[in-house]
Amino acid sequence: MGEPEHLRSTYNDIHNIIRGTSNKIASEFKPDMFIAIGGGGFFPARVLRTFLKDPSTKKNIPIQAIGLSLYESLPGTTVEQLNGEVVRTQWLGPDPGKRLLGRRALIIDEVDDTRKTLQYALNELQKDVEAELQLLPESERDSKRTKFAVFVVHNKLKPKLGKLPPNIPYFAGAEVEDVWLDYPWEVIDIEEHDRLAKEDEERKNITVDEH
Amino acid sequence: MGEPEHLRSTYNDIHNIIRGTSNKIASEFKPDMFIAIGGGGFFPARVLRTFLKDPSTKKNIPIQAIGLSLYESLPGTTVEQLNGEVVRTQWLGPDPGKRLLGRRALIIDEVDDTRKTLQYALNELQKDVEAELQLLPESERDSKRTKFAVFVVHNKLKPKLGKLPPNIPYFAGAEVEDVWLDYPWEVIDIEEHDRLAKEDEERKNITVDEH
Repeated sequence: MGEPEHLRSTYNDIHNIIRGTSNKIASEFKPDMFIAIGGGGFFPARVLRTFLKDPSTKKNIPIQAIGLSLYESLPGTTVEQLNGEVVRTQWLGPDPGKRLLGRRALIIDEVDDTRKTLQYALNELQKDVEAELQLLPESERDSKRTKFAVFVVHNKLKPKLGKLPPNIPYFAGAEVEDVWLDYPWEVIDIEEHDRLAKEDEERKNITVDEH
Repeated sequence: MGEPEHLRSTYNDIHNIIRGTSNKIASEFKPDMFIAIGGGGFFPARVLRTFLKDPSTKKNIPIQAIGLSLYESLPGTTVEQLNGEVVRTQWLGPDPGKRLLGRRALIIDEVDDTRKTLQYALNELQKDVEAELQLLPESERDSKRTKFAVFVVHNKLKPKLGKLPPNIPYFAGAEVEDVWLDYPWEVIDIEEHDRLAKEDEERKNITVDEH
């Protein structure tokens, strides 16, 4: 039996994937700010906040949202099909650079598909930081430069069109083949979705047993 | 047996509450923009988008996020305890007023407790709209004035400290007593949460049977 074309995740699956990665993020990166890429990053960001607290204050980690037009207004098109500039529909603010300076910011999305969205988001955020750093004396810049990392629920194992610099910590809740991911918040009938997810799981277990 | 102190909702419960209200929102308000109050409004906004499309374009409805400091950095304190000014941690943008003009904007949060957050969000958004309208010739203002409505997953039946004007359409997925609401994205162990939610449900059914 070949790989299933669809991978269906239940809400509890996603919750537990995030839970399972949270200790690693806490110990290896210690974020004090989340930047959720909307709309897919909203749910993962909110759930991850339950498992992590600000390392200094022990308070909730603030979530800022950013929006990119391909997510917001062009359903059915991918980054590649757009083949043009990605448009910001929402950004940090007010004062994006000021908000970022000196922080440890975790950029969050639900899936790393081609990596182009993540590359775009990181580049643009870094531009805001650099512009703000220019307003400081040179001696203070290094200590104030924002540290970024990336968290995605699923990373698709496929050739990536976008690149992330090797010094950016990268956390994926789960690595998956290049399948179609069906997220629970995208379905109408959640009971039917859960039933199909359970069937898929049972089928996969049978396939594994046969080997 | 008295009312339970806690009301536990599973992810699927919330999904279905939102589903159950979506037709009413579509037919009575027809939003073409969502404004999610973070972090609690993020998940409901993303789920509601699955059930509604932009009435003119049939495309995804864009989600903008706003953040208020009581949600972001002061866990354990309520609006009343703060007793001061609520601080915006994120706002629409850039150009909030321009984004809002001529739109039908649905403000989304997970719960209407004291209503103060909703009142604050609406007032501030309306200020942005009015400032933008002043830049237009008077004859154009009425047609461009943003229409607002509110959607919450749960409305607590209790005296409200905040007020919403009667001309603002108000949608609540469910009306509940003044109980403690346990949301699935706030718990560590989601299986235990679901188990307790099921127990609560069974206990409630027994109580109803006794009457």
